[in-house]
Amino acid sequence: MSNNDYPDIRYLFEPRSVAVIGASRDPAKIGYKVVENIVVGGYKGRIYPINPGGGDIMGLPACKSVDSVDGEVDVACVVIPSHKVFSAVEGCARKRVKHVMVITSGFSEVGNGAEEKKIAAFARQSGMRIMGPNMFGLYSSSSSLNATFGPRDVRAGGVAIITQSGALGLAMIGKTSVENIGLSAICSVGNKSDLDEADLLEYLVPHDDTKVILMYIEGVRQGEKFIRALKKATRIKPVVVVKSGRSKRGAAAAASHTGSLAGADNVFDAIMRQCGALRAETVKEAFDWCSFMSNNALPDGQETVIITNGGGIGVMATDASEKYGVPLYDNMVTLKEIFSPVTPEFGSMKNPVDITGQAQSDHYDAALDAALNCEDIHAVVALYCETAVFDAEKLPAMVKNNYERFRNARKPILFSLFGGENTERCVTELSREQVPVYGDVYESVSPLGAMYAYRRHLAHYVEAVDTVALDVNAINAIIAGARNEERYFLLTNEAQEIMKIAHIPIPRTLIARSLNEAVNSSREIEYPVVMKVVSKDIIHKSDAGGVALDLENEKEVIDAYEAIMRSCKAHVPGAHIEGVEITEMVSAGTELIAGAKIDPSFGPIVMVGLGGIYVEVMKDVAFRAYPLNRSEVLSMIEQIRSYPLLLGVRGEKTKDISSLVDIILRLGSIVEQCRGISDIEINPVMVYDQGMGSKAVDVRILLSKDQ
Amino acid sequence: MSNNDYPDIRYLFEPRSVAVIGASRDPAKIGYKVVENIVVGGYKGRIYPINPGGGDIMGLPACKSVDSVDGEVDVACVVIPSHKVFSAVEGCARKRVKHVMVITSGFSEVGNGAEEKKIAAFARQSGMRIMGPNMFGLYSSSSSLNATFGPRDVRAGGVAIITQSGALGLAMIGKTSVENIGLSAICSVGNKSDLDEADLLEYLVPHDDTKVILMYIEGVRQGEKFIRALKKATRIKPVVVVKSGRSKRGAAAAASHTGSLAGADNVFDAIMRQCGALRAETVKEAFDWCSFMSNNALPDGQETVIITNGGGIGVMATDASEKYGVPLYDNMVTLKEIFSPVTPEFGSMKNPVDITGQAQSDHYDAALDAALNCEDIHAVVALYCETAVFDAEKLPAMVKNNYERFRNARKPILFSLFGGENTERCVTELSREQVPVYGDVYESVSPLGAMYAYRRHLAHYVEAVDTVALDVNAINAIIAGARNEERYFLLTNEAQEIMKIAHIPIPRTLIARSLNEAVNSSREIEYPVVMKVVSKDIIHKSDAGGVALDLENEKEVIDAYEAIMRSCKAHVPGAHIEGVEITEMVSAGTELIAGAKIDPSFGPIVMVGLGGIYVEVMKDVAFRAYPLNRSEVLSMIEQIRSYPLLLGVRGEKTKDISSLVDIILRLGSIVEQCRGISDIEINPVMVYDQGMGSKAVDVRILLSKDQ
Repeated sequence: MSNNDYPDIRYLFEPRSVAVIGASRDPAKIGYKVVENIVVGGYKGRIYPINPGGGDIMGLPACKSVDSVDGEVDVACVVIPSHKVFSAVEGCARKRVKHVMVITSGFSEVGNGAEEKKIAAFARQSGMRIMGPNMFGLYSSSSSLNATFGPRDVRAGGVAIITQSGALGLAMIGKTSVENIGLSAICSVGNKSDLDEADLLEYLVPHDDTKVILMYIEGVRQGEKFIRALKKATRIKPVVVVKSGRSKRGAAAAASHTGSLAGADNVFDAIMRQCGALRAETVKEAFDWCSFMSNNALPDGQETVIITNGGGIGVMATDASEKYGVPLYDNMVTLKEIFSPVTPEFGSMKNPVDITGQAQSDHYDAALDAALNCEDIHAVVALYCETAVFDAEKLPAMVKNNYERFRNARKPILFSLFGGENTERCVTELSREQVPVYGDVYESVSPLGAMYAYRRHLAHYVEAVDTVALDVNAINAIIAGARNEERYFLLTNEAQEIMKIAHIPIPRTLIARSLNEAVNSSREIEYPVVMKVVSKDIIHKSDAGGVALDLENEKEVIDAYEAIMRSCKAHVPGAHIEGVEITEMVSAGTELIAGAKIDPSFGPIVMVGLGGIYVEVMKDVAFRAYPLNRSEVLSMIEQIRSYPLLLGVRGEKTKDISSLVDIILRLGSIVEQCRGISDIEINPVMVYDQGMGSKAVDVRILLSKDQ
Repeated sequence: MSNNDYPDIRYLFEPRSVAVIGASRDPAKIGYKVVENIVVGGYKGRIYPINPGGGDIMGLPACKSVDSVDGEVDVACVVIPSHKVFSAVEGCARKRVKHVMVITSGFSEVGNGAEEKKIAAFARQSGMRIMGPNMFGLYSSSSSLNATFGPRDVRAGGVAIITQSGALGLAMIGKTSVENIGLSAICSVGNKSDLDEADLLEYLVPHDDTKVILMYIEGVRQGEKFIRALKKATRIKPVVVVKSGRSKRGAAAAASHTGSLAGADNVFDAIMRQCGALRAETVKEAFDWCSFMSNNALPDGQETVIITNGGGIGVMATDASEKYGVPLYDNMVTLKEIFSPVTPEFGSMKNPVDITGQAQSDHYDAALDAALNCEDIHAVVALYCETAVFDAEKLPAMVKNNYERFRNARKPILFSLFGGENTERCVTELSREQVPVYGDVYESVSPLGAMYAYRRHLAHYVEAVDTVALDVNAINAIIAGARNEERYFLLTNEAQEIMKIAHIPIPRTLIARSLNEAVNSSREIEYPVVMKVVSKDIIHKSDAGGVALDLENEKEVIDAYEAIMRSCKAHVPGAHIEGVEITEMVSAGTELIAGAKIDPSFGPIVMVGLGGIYVEVMKDVAFRAYPLNRSEVLSMIEQIRSYPLLLGVRGEKTKDISSLVDIILRLGSIVEQCRGISDIEINPVMVYDQGMGSKAVDVRILLSKDQ
């Protein structure tokens, strides 16, 4: 059944009527709380409390069952015990309810997955969509619907929250209200038996009232679907993500908590970056970002000036700007030109612009005017350290007026105010009015950094998908061969064959069955060459004296051939020796590692990192997921700390990065198109100077076991 | 003049009498503000306003000059214009004032360093100590003295603040008051013409009322003195440091702001770690740490349990614990034993312990009891997500009572409360009562991490100083030789000679003046060897064909000798060739970089890092300063990310770390004892398997130019 057979998900957020199956007259019950919240929240549609006992609930007549409701039901909230849920869902199907929110818990999260699957499968057949089970309900500002058992008062506004933790979500309703962050929607996804985060994004992305989307994630299941939805979403509006389970132990705790597979955090992190989602570390940081971005339009550029009345905090703001990726405007000529009229003698016109401890309200006005009336400056971080000189009474007006003035010009000002009671009160009161004012320098820079990161994503994102045409059948034949032998790894020659099929350059190799052939092959491959014995009977070639490196001429090839034969025969008596393999001696280049694999959360992903023994120790790796294009691979390569090695250090030439991108795209395509492969790793891949290409020196391929 | 000739610095913080030179009747003047703050602040000693006009100031009779004061003056605050300061200081000397605080600005910070030096030199001759100039004064709780022009109300308590930024310091007085952080002292160091941070520590370290010291630093000048003072201080009480100028641009901004040399941040960071100081990133974080540590005794261990009513926040606290170095208790047997009676069926007895969303006040009591009555558990991070089940009215009592109960047992509980208005009010009110309660999970874990870091420092700190006996004269003779030639770098053989003098192993080398000698030398050194031409006329040896690597036997040595002679003569006709240098061919080991240098802020420091081309790109280096011991060098080596390479990865053996420590101590001793050297770098130093030592392959030595 395709998605088109389902009712529009809009009815979930904007239902014309809501039934509460399990509505109760007992205020201690969730069945009461949900009805109360819907009624008190001012929902404009029809409300149908369902209770077998009938009677009145909150002044509304209760129906005995959903079937007996007189009128259509867009959404049914189910709050009855888990063993009764299936039969209620059957009733909903009969009534042709569009969406069922199963608030009830006691399903897969406590090991009762069978019942949950049964319900989801039944709903699917009946053309209904299920939210939950095990969720707290849903709030939607567009229909003034608070169908949750959480706090009664939800502040309406521009932030939509999708949370994987119900407990945290409920508390967020209260916390956002305290922090004056308005919500357009909030819901928990529960056990995701049917609808998941990606589905909810379908509604929220085109939803005008939603300015920013905040997601709290513990683990991702249908990663490929999620990536597609997220990429689409970030084209339209910012998505802020908080994912717990960053640490190893945290990931284990998350897995035991939600049953989600909390994958490697660095993979998750890289994919969020690829999708243009903004990852916040803490809920507090996420709230700050969402609040700021939901209230302020994107500026036209990201040249930022710090204006301060204290040197120390100016320096801290400079540090914070680097940390959060906020570029500081540094055209000294312009800075001097615009700030010299408004900066006192012992101040500084460099950025940070120091208007000194003598600055009063109108000095701030003048400096902010000077900065933001300049075309080349797009935002200001304004710092204030409490002084005796500044008239505290004027502080709130100074902050608010300047903010409002430039807000309409899409030139945000973020304030950091540091001081005693008056200052603190100003922070508290103005942040209640959604003015971006903070008590700490770092806190004031961080939301601007998030906004710029989003802006950069919009500017640099390339929509294309670069797929490589592959002879999939030829690769699958090799995989099938290994599988026939019940092998889940490929032999060197098999792996090399796949590289050839995928047009990934590997060292030239020939097999020689005699001394004469060895000499000819070496000449053909070009000196220097490496010689290795070929024999099924000899596993450890080096130990048997079966390897000779760096052979530079015919004489050395002849000597080596004879030495190898002698030594191997002595070492493994009776071994059948088929000949020797002559390989090009790979010249030194920049050693990287490149790979592609099937990630348990996200499906096919590619990887690049610093090669050799350093990959394990330095963990300097980056990832990207499918769908994938060249530009994303390039940004992955740029992300590794050792990227400067590819640009050339110590006067070395720039390396052939483009050939590396090409190899990675090919690796990814193999894994994406031939799903029998779980893992390809090239370590090392030698990257040579620009124009000289790259070479896959050592390739290891593993097959997936679950096929 | 030795320090003993000065009055005890205690009189600066606990003066029996204070004169204010420049006291004013005009409330707009600093000279009024300082007197007002002293009087209103409740200072118990004698106050002498000094004003040439005489009369009354704040009800106190003003003296016309400090000379005319009837009685001793321990501290004189100077608030007159800068050009009059010197003459006032002369008056103080006549009056035998002990300490002069020059609040007045307009000295070295605006280029007027000569006047400042003159004042400091005069004071020094007269046996007085100077604070400032360009400072905001000083507050000291022990004498209820608020001799500042900042806020009137200072909250007394256990935190002493020393700040390099006056503006920030003044604002901190207000901010600490708002956040209910009590101060034992606060002062800015100004231009440090005489007394600096290290001197102030002398008083604050034994000062009983000071529980924690907070320092705001922009740059360090007398680094060696500072290190000694800081090391002494952290033996007695925690020192929290905020240093701005972490980023490159921030460092530049700091330098232009204070004139301090803001050195490389990674050097500063490493030295703070060595000294046991706790570096906070933001002022907010520093305040949280100070407040927590000033109110809570160190626990007996660091086994921590997270107790939560929500899975999601539990996972976040687990992440935060890893971030901030908080070890989570994980004895599953004990956890199950103590928590099974207090955890509901669908909760978790693993750490984080999840007492579920059904938890009420008494469930928290029971879980906290279970945890903290267990001998093996030393602290708890208790998380609360607002739920409808928990009676909000009981929240403050639950938090406060549990905290107080276990506080006396030195078992801290840190709370994170997340939710709506009631929850938020509880956070605000209880944190005002110094209960460690926070609105964000990360914020609640961070202070515990700081406390543990301090605890670990106390436990692992080794007092010793390991100095290496060196033939300093022999090294100085080599340095003098180079200096005579006006060279500021040493030649290879000079550098090697210094390595020999310092007993740092280098590859064996012999000079051979004939083919015969070359053959004999090669045999003596043992094959394989490297041969290099020795000729003053041949600069680029490789280009001239003057180098041969990996010579494995007599035949190859003979061939190489002849080839080198032939090629060099052809390449540089008429070159005088003295012979060849035969060097041991160094076998491969773990390549590191080791060094020692004179840091402009901290004096002699040592360095270790990942070697080869990676040092530049990965910036995986660590530093330590003098005085230095083996244990500190070892902890420096352990700090680099590539440390696992030394422990052995991929089944490799552990490397000879002890020999590396030895080399680093010797390098450091050279630089410390022979101050003519500014920089020694060994790149690479090859570290071999345990027992096989290390070898300094390539040594580069630079001389200091300012000698």
